[in-house]
Amino acid sequence: MTDPVLQALRDEIDILDAKLLDLVAQRFEVTRRVGAHKRENNLPKADPQREAVQIARLEAMAKERNIDPVFSAQLLRLIIDEVIRDYAREELQ
Amino acid sequence: MTDPVLQALRDEIDILDAKLLDLVAQRFEVTRRVGAHKRENNLPKADPQREAVQIARLEAMAKERNIDPVFSAQLLRLIIDEVIRDYAREELQ
Repeated sequence: MTDPVLQALRDEIDILDAKLLDLVAQRFEVTRRVGAHKRENNLPKADPQREAVQIARLEAMAKERNIDPVFSAQLLRLIIDEVIRDYAREELQ
Repeated sequence: MTDPVLQALRDEIDILDAKLLDLVAQRFEVTRRVGAHKRENNLPKADPQREAVQIARLEAMAKERNIDPVFSAQLLRLIIDEVIRDYAREELQ
């Protein structure tokens, strides 16, 4: 039913989405290690200075890639918020 | 100042974030081609059926990767909303 050009583009998007989720999963693995390391060494969970640097860095990278900076800030916020919830879940285990 | 273990993990996160933005940029390139194709062929911009399939697919992939499904749904929603804004910007050009 779908035209073949549109189908081919959608197949590309589906492949990119799978890669995107793979990267996100890898990223949560690393942030879980960060969380474990922080707990073991009694380091503060949040680090507003690191967050600010990350946000500025990502904004610059987004600009280079012609991605809307408002979107990239929302994306990082969403991920950081999930990292925080993930830390909380880990602590409950 | 930062401890070396934490620094190494943060370096990993920064590399993953750069890869993540590369993928997101690639994805917007493809969705721009989708937008152009739809305009040229007078196809409807939104496709709720395709969106529903994408959301279900991503939810299943998130589960496989031990990613919270609520988070993955929010992530896809954020990206799709930006695609819609991006289409609107392209039309204004």
